[in-house]
Amino acid sequence: MKSDIEIAQEAELKHITEIAEKLGLNEDEIEMYGDNKAKIKYEAYQERMDNEDSKLILTTAITPTPAGEGKTTTSVGLTQALNQLGHDTTVALREPSLGPCFGVKGGAAGGGYSQVVPMEDINLHFTGDIHAIGVAHNLLAAAIDNHIKQDNDLDLNPNDIVFRRVVDMNDRALREVLVGVGGPNGQVREDGFMITVASEVMAILCLAEGVEDLKERLGNILVGYTFDGEPVQAKELNVHGSMAALLKDAIKPNLVQTLENTPAFIHGGPFANIAHGCNSVAATKLAMKTSDITITEAGFGADLGAEKFLDIKCRFADLQPDAVVIVATARALKMHGGMDDASVKELEEENVEAVEAGFENLAKHIENITEEFNLPAVVAINRFPTDTEAELEKIRELCEEKGANVALSEIFAKGGEGGHELAEKVLEAMEESNDDFDQLYPADMPIDEKIETVAEKIYGADGVNFTDGAKEDIDRLTEQGFDDMPVCMAKTQSSISDDPTKKGRPTDFEITVREINVSAGAGFLVALTGAVMTMPGLPKVPAAEEIDVDGDGNITGLF
Amino acid sequence: MKSDIEIAQEAELKHITEIAEKLGLNEDEIEMYGDNKAKIKYEAYQERMDNEDSKLILTTAITPTPAGEGKTTTSVGLTQALNQLGHDTTVALREPSLGPCFGVKGGAAGGGYSQVVPMEDINLHFTGDIHAIGVAHNLLAAAIDNHIKQDNDLDLNPNDIVFRRVVDMNDRALREVLVGVGGPNGQVREDGFMITVASEVMAILCLAEGVEDLKERLGNILVGYTFDGEPVQAKELNVHGSMAALLKDAIKPNLVQTLENTPAFIHGGPFANIAHGCNSVAATKLAMKTSDITITEAGFGADLGAEKFLDIKCRFADLQPDAVVIVATARALKMHGGMDDASVKELEEENVEAVEAGFENLAKHIENITEEFNLPAVVAINRFPTDTEAELEKIRELCEEKGANVALSEIFAKGGEGGHELAEKVLEAMEESNDDFDQLYPADMPIDEKIETVAEKIYGADGVNFTDGAKEDIDRLTEQGFDDMPVCMAKTQSSISDDPTKKGRPTDFEITVREINVSAGAGFLVALTGAVMTMPGLPKVPAAEEIDVDGDGNITGLF
Repeated sequence: MKSDIEIAQEAELKHITEIAEKLGLNEDEIEMYGDNKAKIKYEAYQERMDNEDSKLILTTAITPTPAGEGKTTTSVGLTQALNQLGHDTTVALREPSLGPCFGVKGGAAGGGYSQVVPMEDINLHFTGDIHAIGVAHNLLAAAIDNHIKQDNDLDLNPNDIVFRRVVDMNDRALREVLVGVGGPNGQVREDGFMITVASEVMAILCLAEGVEDLKERLGNILVGYTFDGEPVQAKELNVHGSMAALLKDAIKPNLVQTLENTPAFIHGGPFANIAHGCNSVAATKLAMKTSDITITEAGFGADLGAEKFLDIKCRFADLQPDAVVIVATARALKMHGGMDDASVKELEEENVEAVEAGFENLAKHIENITEEFNLPAVVAINRFPTDTEAELEKIRELCEEKGANVALSEIFAKGGEGGHELAEKVLEAMEESNDDFDQLYPADMPIDEKIETVAEKIYGADGVNFTDGAKEDIDRLTEQGFDDMPVCMAKTQSSISDDPTKKGRPTDFEITVREINVSAGAGFLVALTGAVMTMPGLPKVPAAEEIDVDGDGNITGLF
Repeated sequence: MKSDIEIAQEAELKHITEIAEKLGLNEDEIEMYGDNKAKIKYEAYQERMDNEDSKLILTTAITPTPAGEGKTTTSVGLTQALNQLGHDTTVALREPSLGPCFGVKGGAAGGGYSQVVPMEDINLHFTGDIHAIGVAHNLLAAAIDNHIKQDNDLDLNPNDIVFRRVVDMNDRALREVLVGVGGPNGQVREDGFMITVASEVMAILCLAEGVEDLKERLGNILVGYTFDGEPVQAKELNVHGSMAALLKDAIKPNLVQTLENTPAFIHGGPFANIAHGCNSVAATKLAMKTSDITITEAGFGADLGAEKFLDIKCRFADLQPDAVVIVATARALKMHGGMDDASVKELEEENVEAVEAGFENLAKHIENITEEFNLPAVVAINRFPTDTEAELEKIRELCEEKGANVALSEIFAKGGEGGHELAEKVLEAMEESNDDFDQLYPADMPIDEKIETVAEKIYGADGVNFTDGAKEDIDRLTEQGFDDMPVCMAKTQSSISDDPTKKGRPTDFEITVREINVSAGAGFLVALTGAVMTMPGLPKVPAAEEIDVDGDGNITGLF
């Protein structure tokens, strides 16, 4: 089979004005970025906010393994399939971070015959949103150190600054740095860089509804503490207006297309550990106001991504999905069923027993969606060429035993054509949709109880062990009035528990919470269950060594 | 009078397709970035390279003072005036760095009724070129530290890395940093950040003709030395293909318009001290292939900007200007004539004597252009409201005594209408144009002789004092084969000498050269005559506190 970039480059793209037209957006309502990308103008967005809402489908997945699940591929393929079946469907996805393209991960625009295009552009700069976020973030960071140097009227403690700097690159050497070195350059202090998508500014952009809301949230960012331990917010430095000005275009949703020329919004991409891991509310809402069905997704497995989508994004934006698709693969289930150390070759051999054992992971995610959140779930088995009939049949059988909707999906190899069964099952599930959905907890529940609720209900933990530091954080945040917010769990994505080695469906465990921070601008608390990597490194031979461009501007080596 | 941003926001912009049409570029040949910005596609560029060249005018200025000269305003206004007189004229300018917008400097898109628009966009992100340059730069920086950490096969000396990091922000605290702090994060070493436009990648983008040339130049960047003192270039790290891929759109010239709806290319903006300070060769050439007259400019005063334009950019791109406009103001001449400590109020009082004394500065620049480079010069007196008739008459008289063409220019207050006299004088000067132009020195002259040539001929220095360090640099660079390149002088812009306090026309002085580096990718040597600031800081109350955006995306407070 051809590589992703080969398929993408052979695609016959329609001019973006034609794609916009499918959504009822005319040429004057969009801002073109070349022939195949556009941003939606403010007025076009605002005018449609009174339209009726489309149906909303969330794509999530089992606990990720190195075998891959294909969540974005499924979101795109399902969109293509629903359009083939006559339903005007739009997909709303996160935009990929540039840094990982040059490391190990490669791009993030789907795969095979279910991709969003132009994939090179989407992976490289796209419409500049992430750069705008980076520079808005770094303006605030510069203002902090400048304030400290220029008389420090706010009495900011240089050793208690919580707002770091960002760069959109995998750059290990910047994880921890000393800044302000050299006589007249300010206060020497410990600092560090995160990759730009880990910025709270990204989370804010994804949750903000309009410029005024954006500006207010930017002003609320907690930058650090005074020598007396009082919190200091960005608005006290008075640069949140400038930050919003830098984001005036980034806040507009980006329109592209799938390989089958159906509309796709790609907008915003916050981290799925220290942030909520979903594309922007603006893009999701715009898709819902211009389509019959909207497909969106959330990062990592359902214990993290779906939970945050439902408890954070849906809470702020007043959304309710009509169905949830849980993507699983036979290979990944085998890794959850005892084969987590297996080689690729071993994974390709039939092993129905391992599939059955690993199904427990999927079962827990199904229960969470259907029983904890009261939403209809459909399992999408994303088929790999080496999957055997017996393995696929076993997954189908186990799903049915559990009363779960299930469909085999061949959208990677066949595009929308391979997703008809899945599309039909999703359409059926949407009919089951009712109004029983609710968030897991009210935002004004005490912080520890919110965390315990997520841990017990979603992870199946016996309880939560708060370290002394975490307890102090809870007391301080509560005292400072930052307790009245949903909780964003920063936990390993590799296990439903907080121990990445525990595959399948872990039991008899507690979650340890080590630290609690507040993203006061985004509007959530972040509970850290371990060290969270916010700056990836490059491997010995980075993907950057393969990527190239020819004299006509054609990119090769991007995957 | 209205502020620049008010005038810009009231302008009736034409759709960029209409502006492109004036250049004979049709809709399929451009990539729109919204309604008022576009990039020119590769093929459209390549197809025009056999067209006849337009006339070429360089705008430069007297030695800058805080009183302001209005070089960009003059370039834009002259373009508008020539178009009014029936000459198809295009201006090719540098794109502004984002950082200084939030510091003290404000934007850089002309002023009054001679601006390029949309000014907010041009000043904030524009089409993303500078962000692309920043991330391409930082990819190489990350690859360097990654290489050192991952076995260091190239034997790179961590204490002898010459390639720093960049950020597009005025961030004093990043001037000097320690990177790699924290156990597993690599080798702790001293590093620092420059503002992005100081990156060699910017200089390369501005000199490269096509992607292949770009890639080769990126590969030639000197990143540091081995423990044995051997130079290591970017191509040895094998990420120059990725860097070029990141620049595949940034290399395309950007088209916008003046307030009078005439075409303007705004593309590339390297520093004018450690780099050559001119917009891209690609934009200048494209303007020349699609217009009758092209106006372009160079940073700082004529001793730096014009000299580098003529000795570096014209040499590489095989260009020859037909005339040079030297911008002067009565206020600035007064500062050169003994009033360098005067208050704004004092500068506004008539002082013909100070004008006359300060004229010596202008005289030296006129001599340099006409006698050293054999090019026709026109002095543009950029009128300020407080200039008196007697002052203006004195400048005119002194210019005429010197045999120089001179015109009063009122393009700030009146747009093109205020530039008719200047335009007529420029048209006359172009007729004088001959083939006597030549660079000051051949590129293969020994390094010290090249520097002496510039210092003696252009600055009027008695000679050059090379420090021991500089002498060692010359020996090493010569031995390593980096001697065969033009020299880019990094000198104060505030004096023709290397002492910023010496105004007017300094005499009886030597230039001290302290260090010589090579920008092996850009293809020039950099001679440092003192400390060069490559990372500005923010003032106590940065401009960022004034900038804001409203709910409809309208920017205020940008100047």
